[in-house]
Amino acid sequence: MWLSLHELMTRLSHDPNVRAIVLTASGPRAFSAGLDIQAASTPGSALSSSESSATTPPDAARKANHLRRHILSFQTCITALETCEKPVICALHGICFGLAIDIALACDVRLAAADARFAVKEVDVGIAADIGTLTRLPRAGVSMSWAKDVCLTAREFAASEALAVGFVSGVFEGKDGVLRAALEKAVLVASKSPVAVLGTKEILNYSRDHSVADALNYTAVWNAAYLQTQDVRDAMLAGMKKKKTSFAKL
Amino acid sequence: MWLSLHELMTRLSHDPNVRAIVLTASGPRAFSAGLDIQAASTPGSALSSSESSATTPPDAARKANHLRRHILSFQTCITALETCEKPVICALHGICFGLAIDIALACDVRLAAADARFAVKEVDVGIAADIGTLTRLPRAGVSMSWAKDVCLTAREFAASEALAVGFVSGVFEGKDGVLRAALEKAVLVASKSPVAVLGTKEILNYSRDHSVADALNYTAVWNAAYLQTQDVRDAMLAGMKKKKTSFAKL
Amino acid sequence: MWLSLHELMTRLSHDPNVRAIVLTASGPRAFSAGLDIQAASTPGSALSSSESSATTPPDAARKANHLRRHILSFQTCITALETCEKPVICALHGICFGLAIDIALACDVRLAAADARFAVKEVDVGIAADIGTLTRLPRAGVSMSWAKDVCLTAREFAASEALAVGFVSGVFEGKDGVLRAALEKAVLVASKSPVAVLGTKEILNYSRDHSVADALNYTAVWNAAYLQTQDVRDAMLAGMKKKKTSFAKL
Amino acid sequence: MWLSLHELMTRLSHDPNVRAIVLTASGPRAFSAGLDIQAASTPGSALSSSESSATTPPDAARKANHLRRHILSFQTCITALETCEKPVICALHGICFGLAIDIALACDVRLAAADARFAVKEVDVGIAADIGTLTRLPRAGVSMSWAKDVCLTAREFAASEALAVGFVSGVFEGKDGVLRAALEKAVLVASKSPVAVLGTKEILNYSRDHSVADALNYTAVWNAAYLQTQDVRDAMLAGMKKKKTSFAKL
Amino acid sequence: MWLSLHELMTRLSHDPNVRAIVLTASGPRAFSAGLDIQAASTPGSALSSSESSATTPPDAARKANHLRRHILSFQTCITALETCEKPVICALHGICFGLAIDIALACDVRLAAADARFAVKEVDVGIAADIGTLTRLPRAGVSMSWAKDVCLTAREFAASEALAVGFVSGVFEGKDGVLRAALEKAVLVASKSPVAVLGTKEILNYSRDHSVADALNYTAVWNAAYLQTQDVRDAMLAGMKKKKTSFAKL
Amino acid sequence: MWLSLHELMTRLSHDPNVRAIVLTASGPRAFSAGLDIQAASTPGSALSSSESSATTPPDAARKANHLRRHILSFQTCITALETCEKPVICALHGICFGLAIDIALACDVRLAAADARFAVKEVDVGIAADIGTLTRLPRAGVSMSWAKDVCLTAREFAASEALAVGFVSGVFEGKDGVLRAALEKAVLVASKSPVAVLGTKEILNYSRDHSVADALNYTAVWNAAYLQTQDVRDAMLAGMKKKKTSFAKL
Repeated sequence: MWLSLHELMTRLSHDPNVRAIVLTASGPRAFSAGLDIQAASTPGSALSSSESSATTPPDAARKANHLRRHILSFQTCITALETCEKPVICALHGICFGLAIDIALACDVRLAAADARFAVKEVDVGIAADIGTLTRLPRAGVSMSWAKDVCLTAREFAASEALAVGFVSGVFEGKDGVLRAALEKAVLVASKSPVAVLGTKEILNYSRDHSVADALNYTAVWNAAYLQTQDVRDAMLAGMKKKKTSFAKL
Repeated sequence: MWLSLHELMTRLSHDPNVRAIVLTASGPRAFSAGLDIQAASTPGSALSSSESSATTPPDAARKANHLRRHILSFQTCITALETCEKPVICALHGICFGLAIDIALACDVRLAAADARFAVKEVDVGIAADIGTLTRLPRAGVSMSWAKDVCLTAREFAASEALAVGFVSGVFEGKDGVLRAALEKAVLVASKSPVAVLGTKEILNYSRDHSVADALNYTAVWNAAYLQTQDVRDAMLAGMKKKKTSFAKL
Repeated sequence: MWLSLHELMTRLSHDPNVRAIVLTASGPRAFSAGLDIQAASTPGSALSSSESSATTPPDAARKANHLRRHILSFQTCITALETCEKPVICALHGICFGLAIDIALACDVRLAAADARFAVKEVDVGIAADIGTLTRLPRAGVSMSWAKDVCLTAREFAASEALAVGFVSGVFEGKDGVLRAALEKAVLVASKSPVAVLGTKEILNYSRDHSVADALNYTAVWNAAYLQTQDVRDAMLAGMKKKKTSFAKL
Repeated sequence: MWLSLHELMTRLSHDPNVRAIVLTASGPRAFSAGLDIQAASTPGSALSSSESSATTPPDAARKANHLRRHILSFQTCITALETCEKPVICALHGICFGLAIDIALACDVRLAAADARFAVKEVDVGIAADIGTLTRLPRAGVSMSWAKDVCLTAREFAASEALAVGFVSGVFEGKDGVLRAALEKAVLVASKSPVAVLGTKEILNYSRDHSVADALNYTAVWNAAYLQTQDVRDAMLAGMKKKKTSFAKL
Repeated sequence: MWLSLHELMTRLSHDPNVRAIVLTASGPRAFSAGLDIQAASTPGSALSSSESSATTPPDAARKANHLRRHILSFQTCITALETCEKPVICALHGICFGLAIDIALACDVRLAAADARFAVKEVDVGIAADIGTLTRLPRAGVSMSWAKDVCLTAREFAASEALAVGFVSGVFEGKDGVLRAALEKAVLVASKSPVAVLGTKEILNYSRDHSVADALNYTAVWNAAYLQTQDVRDAMLAGMKKKKTSFAKL
Repeated sequence: MWLSLHELMTRLSHDPNVRAIVLTASGPRAFSAGLDIQAASTPGSALSSSESSATTPPDAARKANHLRRHILSFQTCITALETCEKPVICALHGICFGLAIDIALACDVRLAAADARFAVKEVDVGIAADIGTLTRLPRAGVSMSWAKDVCLTAREFAASEALAVGFVSGVFEGKDGVLRAALEKAVLVASKSPVAVLGTKEILNYSRDHSVADALNYTAVWNAAYLQTQDVRDAMLAGMKKKKTSFAKL
C-alpha cells in the first residue's frame, strides 16, 4: 500500500492535469489507526521476532541493516507527499493515530474534522516514531514543549487542541465538512498559476531546512527561471482588467 | 526607493544616536499594497516582457541572470532591516499585501492595527514570493500548515488571525494605536543597554539559522567581548540602588 | 551549584532506575529570580570589574578568554538537562526570571503554575542572555516576534501568555498544582518503554537542529538498533491482551 | 542506459552475494567520451531547441521545470553508485571526458590506466556540469585551484597529473593493468567483514558532508547496532589464531 | 584601497565585456608584504591603542563592536573576488605575506612565480588572520596538517612547496612567466561560453560550502534556467563542424 | 588511560604555562598498535560477547545503548586533543595502527619518522573505525579516493606515502628525528603570541566544519575581542625594532 502511495504521488507530481491534491480516508471512523499490530506481529514482518526462514538467524548487526533498509524505504513512500510538486491538503477525521500523524505532517496543509482524535501512539508500542512524526513536528511551527508532551506520553488530543497549537490550520464539522473545506481550498489553489504554486511549495520546504541566507539565494536562482513564465503576464493583464484568467498546464 | 531603504538602514545601524527604530507607512489606508502592477509592466522593468532596447533579445539564460542579479539586489535592500544593529519594530496598518509581508518579516517585532488586512499576494500575480516572505515565514514560529495555506491561496487574513498564529505579537486600535504602541516599545528598548540589545538581536537571529550547539558556542565568543562593557556594572549598580541609569552610546 | 546540577543530570542520565525527571524549586515564592547580583558583583566573580589578584591586570583579550571559558562551562551545566537521556519536566512557579528561562528551555516539557511570572531579564543587567535562552527560544516553536519582544524589553509575562504562545504547554493552580501535574506526567512517561522514550527525546532534539532529510536518515540508523528491543514485543502482546506491561530497565 | 545503471546499482546494493564492485568500460579506447552530441541534438532530447510536438511551445519557466526534473532524475542514476551499500572501484582508461568524470567521482576508489586522458568537458558545450562533477570535486580532497582550472578551461589532464593531485589514487599500465589492480582491490575488500565495510563507506560519505561533531555522533549511533556483529568476534578469534576467516553474508 | 577593490570587482562582475580577470601586483618585488605596520600603528587606525579623539575611551565591548564592523567590512572587500561572477586568476610573485594569502585564497585559480615566497604572517603580529586565510584554507583542498603548520608557525614556504600541497596549481619562471601563464589561461576561459563559465564558478563555490545532496539540487535548479542558453546550441554546432564559435555577452 | 588523556588535555588546555604540546609514544617500536585484542575480548569489555553478570542478558537495543554511551565517552577522550586550546603536534614512529590514526587526526600537526608504518586497521577486526578516523579523514585535505582505499582495505602505508597525500606534513629520520622536529616546531609555536595561536587553531577548526560565510562572521566576532590584546602592540613594536619579544601568559 505504501509503495502504491509512492508510485501514485510520483505520478501526480508530474501529471500536468493535476494542480492540487486532497488526501482523505475512505472509512467513516478513522483516517488511520496506525500500525496494524496483527500484521506487524506476523512471522516474517519487519518487527517480528520469529524469523520466517529456518536458516541461522542473523546477528543483531545484520538484523539492524535489514531494519534500516526497511525504514528508509518506508520513509521514502511517505516523503513522496512532501516532494510531490503539487500541494497536498490533508483532510483528517476520526481516529488519527501513529502513521496518521506521520502522513499528515508530510502534507502541506492539515485540516481536521471537529471529532478528529489524534495521538502520536508509537511510544505505546515501544517505538520511537520513525516515519516522520519526530522529524517534522519540531519544524511544523508548534510549541516544542507541547510536541514533546504528546510524543512522550502518547496521549490523545482533540481537533481543538490541534488547532490551538497550530498542528492543523482549520477545523470543520464532520468528515463531510472537512472534506468540503479541503476540496474548496484545493480548487482555489488549482485556480492559481501552477508555476507560482510549485515555487511557493518548493521554497517554503527548502526554507524550513536551510538558513535564511541560503534560502534567499536559492529563491533568487529559482525565480531566475520561473519568473520567465507567461503566467506573470497573464495574471497582471487579468489583474488590470479585473478578470479571472486560466493558466497553462505545467 | 529600496536602495534608499538599504542606505538608510545601513546608516542607522551604525549611528550611535539611534537605539531602536519604528517602521511605519505614511498613508492612511495601507502599509503597502505590494508590487505596483503598473510600474512592473512598464517596458524595461524586470518583470516586463517587452525589452526596452531594440537589439537581439537575450536568450532565457541571459534573462535569467539579469533576473537573478535583480532579485539578489532587491533582497539585500530588505534584509538590511534584519542586519541593522538596532531593533526594528514594524507598525502595520490597513492593507499589508505582498511586499508588506516581506518587509514585516525582516523586522524584529511586528505589531498591527486591528483593521490591518494581510495577504501573501504573490501567487496571484504568478510569482513565488522572492524577497523574503517564503524564506522567513517557516522560521517565524508560526504554524507551517497555516503558512502554506496563506502562501498557496493568497487569501486575506485579519489582524486577529495574525495575532493568534504569532505572525504579529500585538494588536492595537487603529493606525494611531499601533504607532503609539510601537513607539512606546521603541522607547523602552532604547532605555536599555545598547550593548545588551545589540547582542540580543544578533544572537536571536544567529540561533534561528544554526543548531543550538553552534549557537551556544557563538554566544560564548560574542559575550567574551561584550560582557566587558561598563553597562553591566552601571546596570547592577542602578539595580542595587533601585534607580534608573542611562547607558553610553554604542 | 551548577556543577552539581551537571553532575546530577549526568548520573541520572545513565541510572537505570530513573525513567523521568521533574525539576522544581524548593522555595514558595520563586523558581529562580535569576542572577544573584550581590554574588556577581563580588570581587573575583566572572562579571566583577575589580580583579581579585594584585598582579598586572590582564588585557581585554585575556579577560575575554576567561569569560569564554566560564560561559562555555556554565552552558555545559545547563545543557546537561537537554542531553540527559531521560525526559525532564519542568514545574515552574512564582518568579521565573533570567536563568529560570535558560533552565526551563533546556528541559523537555514546561508546565507552569497560574501565578508564575516570567521575564528574560538579562538585558536589564546589560547582558545578552548567554546560557541558552536566546539560542533555544527561536527553536521552541514560539512566535519570533513575541520572542524578540520579551527578550529586548525584559518585560514580564504571565503564565497565561506563556501558554498562549507555547512557551509552556500547561498551566495549573499553584505550585502544588503544577508539581502534581508534572509528577503525573512523569509517572505516565515512566510507564512507557524506556527504549522508546529515549529515542523519542533524542530524535526530537536532533530534528530541531537538522534538516528533515538528515533527521529521517538519523532516525533510520537509530531505530535499526533500538527497534530490536524486547519492549516492542512486550508492548504488542500487552496491547493485544489489553493489559499493562512493565518494561525492563535501560 | 542510466536508468539501467540505477536499477543495477540498487539491486547490487542489497544483493548479499556482492561485496565489492568494479566499474569499467568495455571498449578499448574510452571509458566514456561524455555526452553524445548527436543524440543530444536530436529533436525531442532534453537539450534540443526544437520541440518534438507541434503544440504551443512552453514558456521558459515550463521548459525550466522539464529540465529540472530531467537533471534531478539523471543525477539520481549516477548517485546510485555512491548510495550503493557496496564499495565501487572505478577502473578508468583511455578517454574519460565529461560524464566519465561525473561517474568516477560518484565511485569510492578511482584507479587509472597510464594512458587515461581526462577532461571536464562540459564548459566546451556551453554547460556547467550538472550530474555531479562540480558538486563532488570540491569534496574529493583535491586542490581547489586545480579543480577550478580544469573545470573552467576544460583542458585535458593525464593520469600522472590525476594521481599527483589525488583525483585518482593509483595508476597502472594499460586497461588490463588497471582492471587487474581494481579486481585485486575488490577481492581484498570482499574478504573483509561486510558489516565493517558497509559502515566504513557510509561513515566516510556522511563525514564528507557533515561537521566532525555531527559525524562522531552519527558514528556512535551507527556502531551501537553494527558492533553487535558476529564478525567482530570471528575476526578477533582469527586474529589471535593468525588465521583467515570468512564472514557471513549481509 | 580595499573599498576600491570591492567597487572594481562589483563592476567587473556585471560588465558584459569582461569574461575573465587576472589579478597581479605592479611592483617587481612583492605581490603584497601584508599589513603595513607603520599605517596600522598610526593613531586612529583600527589596531591602534591610542584613541584619536580626546573623549572618554570606549569600554572593551564598544571597542569590540568597532573592530567587528571594521573586520566585516574588510572581509566584504576581499570576498568580492569570490562573489565576482567572472573567474579571477591570481598571478603571485615575490613576497606574498599576510593579506597576500587572504587575497589569493579568495581568487579562483592561483599561479605562482618560481621565486614567490609565501607566509601566513599574522601570528607574528599577534593576530589570528581574519580576512579569509583561516576560513578558506581548510576548504582549499590542502593538507590540514600542513595548513596548521604554516598558520601556527608563520614560516615561509616556497612556490615549489605551494605547488606540492596544492595551494597553487602552477609555477612559472619569474613575474613575467606567471603573468603570461595567467593571461593565457584567462584568454582561454574568456573564449568559452560565459553562461557555462559563470555556472561552473558558482556551483564549485556553492558545493565547497554545502553537502553533495544540497549541491546537486542547487545545480539542477541553476541549470533549469542556464541550460536554456543559445550557447549550448552554438557550441554543439561548432563542435560538429569542428569550428570555433564566439559566444554572446552575458 | 583514555580518561587520563582527557583529564590531562583538559588541564593543559587552561594551564597558562603551556603553549604547545608534543604527543609522542614512549616505546621504541610503536606509536600504537591499536586496539588490544586480548583486553577487548575479556569478559565484560565493551566488545565482548559474554556478559560479565549472570542476570538476564540485555536485548540488542539495551546493548546498543551501552555501546553508544561507551563510544561517545571514548570519542570525547580523543576529541580533547582537538578542543585543547593549545596546538598539539603529533610525532609518529614505528607501528601506527588503528587508534594511532584516530589520535593523530585529532592533533593539529602530524609529523612522522621515516620508518613509521600506518594502517586504518579497524575493518580487519570487523569494525567501522568509530573514534574519529572516518570522521576526520574526509576533512584532513587528503584525496578521498586514497582515504577510502586505505580505510576499506586496511592496507599499510609508509611515511613517504603519508607525506605525499598530506596525511602528515613532515617526515624525519627515526623516532629521535621526528621528536626533535616536533619539539622544535613546538618551541617555535610557543614563542608566538598565545592569543594569536589560540585564535588560529580555533578558527581553522571552526572553518573546517562551517561554510566560508559562517566562518568569516565567526572570525569577526572572535577577533572583536582578541585583537584587543597587548600582544599586537608588543609584536608590532618588536617588529619595528627587529627584536624578539616575549608574550604574557594566557
